[in-house]
Amino acid sequence: MRDFSPLEMKRRNFILDTIKTVYQRYGYRQIETPAMENLSVLEGKYGEEGDKLLFRMLNSGPVLEKIHNQKSAINHSDLTEKGLRYDLTVPFARYVVMHQNEITFPFKRFQVQPVWRADRPQKGRYREFVQCDADVIGSDSLLNEVEMILMMDEVFSKLGLKMNIRINNRKILSGIAQVIGEENNMMNITVAIDKLEKAGMEKVIEELKSKGVSDEAVKKLQPLMEFKGANKETISFLGNFLADSGSGKKGLEEINFVLNTISTFNIQHSTFNFDMLLARGLEYYTGAIFEVKLNDSRSSFTGSLLGGGRYDDLTGIFGMPGVSGVGISFGVDRIYDVMDEMKLFDELNLQSSGAQVMFVNFGDEEVKSCLQMAQQLRKAGINAEIYPDAAKMKKQLSYADSNKIPFVVLVGSEEIKTGLLSLKDMRTGEQGNFSLEKLIEKILTAESQGRGENE
Amino acid sequence: MRDFSPLEMKRRNFILDTIKTVYQRYGYRQIETPAMENLSVLEGKYGEEGDKLLFRMLNSGPVLEKIHNQKSAINHSDLTEKGLRYDLTVPFARYVVMHQNEITFPFKRFQVQPVWRADRPQKGRYREFVQCDADVIGSDSLLNEVEMILMMDEVFSKLGLKMNIRINNRKILSGIAQVIGEENNMMNITVAIDKLEKAGMEKVIEELKSKGVSDEAVKKLQPLMEFKGANKETISFLGNFLADSGSGKKGLEEINFVLNTISTFNIQHSTFNFDMLLARGLEYYTGAIFEVKLNDSRSSFTGSLLGGGRYDDLTGIFGMPGVSGVGISFGVDRIYDVMDEMKLFDELNLQSSGAQVMFVNFGDEEVKSCLQMAQQLRKAGINAEIYPDAAKMKKQLSYADSNKIPFVVLVGSEEIKTGLLSLKDMRTGEQGNFSLEKLIEKILTAESQGRGENE
Repeated sequence: MRDFSPLEMKRRNFILDTIKTVYQRYGYRQIETPAMENLSVLEGKYGEEGDKLLFRMLNSGPVLEKIHNQKSAINHSDLTEKGLRYDLTVPFARYVVMHQNEITFPFKRFQVQPVWRADRPQKGRYREFVQCDADVIGSDSLLNEVEMILMMDEVFSKLGLKMNIRINNRKILSGIAQVIGEENNMMNITVAIDKLEKAGMEKVIEELKSKGVSDEAVKKLQPLMEFKGANKETISFLGNFLADSGSGKKGLEEINFVLNTISTFNIQHSTFNFDMLLARGLEYYTGAIFEVKLNDSRSSFTGSLLGGGRYDDLTGIFGMPGVSGVGISFGVDRIYDVMDEMKLFDELNLQSSGAQVMFVNFGDEEVKSCLQMAQQLRKAGINAEIYPDAAKMKKQLSYADSNKIPFVVLVGSEEIKTGLLSLKDMRTGEQGNFSLEKLIEKILTAESQGRGENE
Repeated sequence: MRDFSPLEMKRRNFILDTIKTVYQRYGYRQIETPAMENLSVLEGKYGEEGDKLLFRMLNSGPVLEKIHNQKSAINHSDLTEKGLRYDLTVPFARYVVMHQNEITFPFKRFQVQPVWRADRPQKGRYREFVQCDADVIGSDSLLNEVEMILMMDEVFSKLGLKMNIRINNRKILSGIAQVIGEENNMMNITVAIDKLEKAGMEKVIEELKSKGVSDEAVKKLQPLMEFKGANKETISFLGNFLADSGSGKKGLEEINFVLNTISTFNIQHSTFNFDMLLARGLEYYTGAIFEVKLNDSRSSFTGSLLGGGRYDDLTGIFGMPGVSGVGISFGVDRIYDVMDEMKLFDELNLQSSGAQVMFVNFGDEEVKSCLQMAQQLRKAGINAEIYPDAAKMKKQLSYADSNKIPFVVLVGSEEIKTGLLSLKDMRTGEQGNFSLEKLIEKILTAESQGRGENE
């Protein structure tokens, strides 16, 4: 697990605030759920592997004594009854069922909270990490899918990342399985073809056969795996391929609607593609499937930075069946790592985490004036600090330097007399004298230019 | 533990953002630490009671099987090695020691994260709650105390709360104990007089005597407990009382500096008082002690909404002695409850959590135009949503109403033809026709007026 330094926080907050702002622009509303849930809520929801990775709380009270004194066999529930949030989806489902009478559906919610997994730590995988989800629940409309794509494009373009947004539909995958005569083998097929990019055709065919997919079916699949074409060509190719599958045709219709609607927008920063084999190996998707990967020569990272899709029955498990939902989740840690690798934080002027201005401390008398002036700066929206001790000038300037404070103000007895303050730009070394009013103006201008570069 | 609804989140975020912004204005920088710490970091730091209230994690892996197979006695560490954050102060101390080589002192940090305590749930006490701390570490300067008082005043006045800010100094309490001849009984004395307000004089005297404070000492204390006076009178009274105590005189000098410096500012919204008996019962304070309570006839809540003080040795426990610090902590949950009770969220225009505008959905054709227009609104900084399904008008308007969306836009075929959109103000029922440009202007004006009322 990690500590986040002020600079890391500044950069993480930039990413999170960008995502949160876009979610809100589209009418999503934030909720939070507690870190701990009853194990009955969590267990069995993430597969066998997930159950192993749940963090469980030791029951409160003298558990050890209880165990020592207990004559009957010790049960798991004697030790633990609660666990930590493993993702945001299951707690959200629990929330919707529990608060169904307070919610007016469709419910557009977003949630940004840490989750915990008892994974072996490794590069890019953490035991505590933030998830950043938006879901609409209680609406079948494909407008939700359309707006989610617009949100992705907006977030990534604000972050300065060029992406490839891919979409598929689970009904198309079902249709394909049906057409090749392997309807009951669909999960195995999607798991196998999900590896096409990484493992290559040969390995995928091997896996398909090992999972009992017939030679004939593999032969029928092969042209799909080899197919390369733009969105329109894929649609027309599949129109023929899926002609006999009701489910396939429905999926194609849905994809068509989304592609047509998105084509009326200017998706500038990202490419947007229909990928008929995109599966993401997640059993619960029933409609749209989203995946977004980097499409930028400045980084070789190949993992996905966003995933999502539509699920027909999220809350059924908690006793509220038949409510459809669609959601997306940004991979914040990966986005951070990629932006760091590409040095985007420098371009975005996110090199400093502290005040914009430091007043040098020349002693009690001068500080009295600085305190008043600092309040004026703060009122104008400038983050300002006064070095708290009348330390040596060198020490004070080195503090400003280490903390990358861009401006230093020097107010000695001379400056108090004349009312002209000495302002030093720490990045250029330039120094000049300004009235308080002009000094505020100068700093605000410098800051808005800094921000201006990002937009 | 609690779920937070969108409206609660909106209001909580308002409080947290207000505090965070003020912290940043004064040059404080945010850090975060992980939810889990090794038990060796946490245990023994919060007293016996605190150790009982720590949430501990069950070790990962097949703990139960291990216990069953183990021949030797089961130790606590066989069950658990990590616990959840109990406060932000101890993890901060651990952070400072661990990262001391990366930090340029003085280090002004703030931290806003949840903490967990296995307390019995009761009104106003939660097992998971957010703490909101700012500390300066590595500076003895009383300027830090001064600026902290300015921060308190600024935060509470932005929240619309009238407060009574009280300050004392631990050295004054030591001086008093010294003067009455009970230097070694100081903790018992401060614990007892801390109850003066709630329990009354008689009970306090009873407790003092039961803790072995001599009759003579109690007699000497009594005039202090009965004393009522403004800051200047208290100072002059104590000047005499503490004349023979070096520690007491030092404390008085420090208080004097803070009072004099603060007097040059316009503390408008709050009263600011020196309270020579304020103790807050916390052993580790060595200098300033802060406590802020409500001073507002609209609520009868008497608990404190902020506490803090100076401690001479926070990091010594982790092997880095002699580093002085001073910090404050806002009680966010209590602030929320009080603001709710006083209906301040209504005054602050925080009644709605969702979009500012909803486009009614008349069907696929009309929606195409709405999608484009919604993008224009969003670009202008307006949170806008389109009802995702072409449901009955009544249902759509009732969704807007339940979610307290202030404006609804109706775009039918007629509106598309003329380019004049129908805008309905859901609060007044007023309806009018506007070009897209004028409509954006109108909504932005309404919003800035809403915000304007708060400032």
